[in-house]
Amino acid sequence: MKLCRYGAAGAEKPGLIDAEGRIRDLSGHVADLTGAEIGAAGLARLKAIDPASLPLVEGTPRYGPPVAGTRQFVAIGLNYADHAAESNLPIPSEPVVFNKWITCIQGPNDPVTIPRGSKKTDWEVELGVIIGTRASYVEEADALDHVAGYCTINDVSERHWQTERGPTWDKGKGFPTFGPIGPWLVTADEVGDPQALSMWLSVNGKRVQDGGTATMIFTVAQIVSYLSQFMVLEPGDVITTGTPPGVGLGQKPEPWYLKAGDVVELGIEKLGAQRQDFVAWEAGK
Amino acid sequence: MKLCRYGAAGAEKPGLIDAEGRIRDLSGHVADLTGAEIGAAGLARLKAIDPASLPLVEGTPRYGPPVAGTRQFVAIGLNYADHAAESNLPIPSEPVVFNKWITCIQGPNDPVTIPRGSKKTDWEVELGVIIGTRASYVEEADALDHVAGYCTINDVSERHWQTERGPTWDKGKGFPTFGPIGPWLVTADEVGDPQALSMWLSVNGKRVQDGGTATMIFTVAQIVSYLSQFMVLEPGDVITTGTPPGVGLGQKPEPWYLKAGDVVELGIEKLGAQRQDFVAWEAGK
Repeated sequence: MKLCRYGAAGAEKPGLIDAEGRIRDLSGHVADLTGAEIGAAGLARLKAIDPASLPLVEGTPRYGPPVAGTRQFVAIGLNYADHAAESNLPIPSEPVVFNKWITCIQGPNDPVTIPRGSKKTDWEVELGVIIGTRASYVEEADALDHVAGYCTINDVSERHWQTERGPTWDKGKGFPTFGPIGPWLVTADEVGDPQALSMWLSVNGKRVQDGGTATMIFTVAQIVSYLSQFMVLEPGDVITTGTPPGVGLGQKPEPWYLKAGDVVELGIEKLGAQRQDFVAWEAGK
Repeated sequence: MKLCRYGAAGAEKPGLIDAEGRIRDLSGHVADLTGAEIGAAGLARLKAIDPASLPLVEGTPRYGPPVAGTRQFVAIGLNYADHAAESNLPIPSEPVVFNKWITCIQGPNDPVTIPRGSKKTDWEVELGVIIGTRASYVEEADALDHVAGYCTINDVSERHWQTERGPTWDKGKGFPTFGPIGPWLVTADEVGDPQALSMWLSVNGKRVQDGGTATMIFTVAQIVSYLSQFMVLEPGDVITTGTPPGVGLGQKPEPWYLKAGDVVELGIEKLGAQRQDFVAWEAGK
């Protein structure tokens, strides 16, 4: 099952993608797709609905992030061996954990703002994990039971802020618009093995990232189990699990960073694609 | 004006502390003290209420965190020169920014859990800043206009997780119960100069931290302005601004970490005191 939230930012309605790829309006059944609605019972209830019974949504509305009310946006760094190498950083012996500020979350196709003075705004296609049930001290074997579904994420990053302005990464990861999520939450049963998904990212039509979750250092199950020792994961929380090689920082012969006017497109097998116009920061926005 | 939230966890009511230090019930005027209620207009509305007209709350209810619905809990590291020295780390040239997971927030006197296997659970008394109005690219001269008020925070930390398990600090700062906030939100007008507050912390009755915000490296105004370049601060967000010397890590002749049964008390001038029983992690909680 593919779930989405569609409509103007801040006024999204819940939707379901039918077999023909059209949006069906779910708002007669749920007010919104929050963490409370995407536990096992909530998903079972939605799955029991006949899509043909739902009103068809006309036109091509904007997609919002596919889950509402996310309170924790957790990120894993250097989780593909080749990406660690291109970043000139050692392969981590355990997951690297950082934070993306909640206010960076936006829809998958909304424009991304290049911050004032930024010289190193970069892209990262990543598998997103949306938590469906609370996870605390979860064993690896049980970890995927806590996952409601998966989504495409662009973990937009400002490299100078991330790595050259202090010992932590959080400065460079959470500027507003740096967290496009979606278009869909694809339920775990429909995705199957999360370690067998191809993924890609293009800048201005040039393919720069081409990888797959098969080469992740730490699997989704390992990440969920690991995080649950250091924090509690709650329904609606989102984990972004690291990026394969090909980010701007790793381009040869020299790094390639984004500027206003650039277009980034990215996608993950089964999870859908995003497209972002990168725009200059403007005062007053 | 001193605002609070009192009652059982998850069912707190809004309250106001009267001139005699008693809690008055504000729930006839606001449903809760969220970010939406603590902007300039909201605080003016509450300030216009005659405390004597509010029902007196009987007994000594539990305090919750004084603001509800916080979405971003931002932390500044190494913000007192002496504390940087005791941590064997250089004085930062700009603020060190990290994250405390939202799920660590709790009331000021709730027990704190020592995580499973933790050997280095530590304390940090800190000045908390509660944002009242949205802040993006705010100049230092205007920064304090975005502050609703101040509070006492214990930035509980697991040092091994923070500094020995990867390049970022976020692992060691956000375990559930690691974010006691309160008892009160004391409005900025009542606090006056946030750089002139004494602060203290005791473990089992022994005073270990004794400092004041006058020795902060980066002031509250500088921190708010600085952060607003990297992220958006929203009403209800909380910033914890670093700790003076005397944490467990810095004790001589050797570090002193917390164990089950320890009692930590802390306070900041004008902002009230906290008291936490440290308890062992138990399965199933």
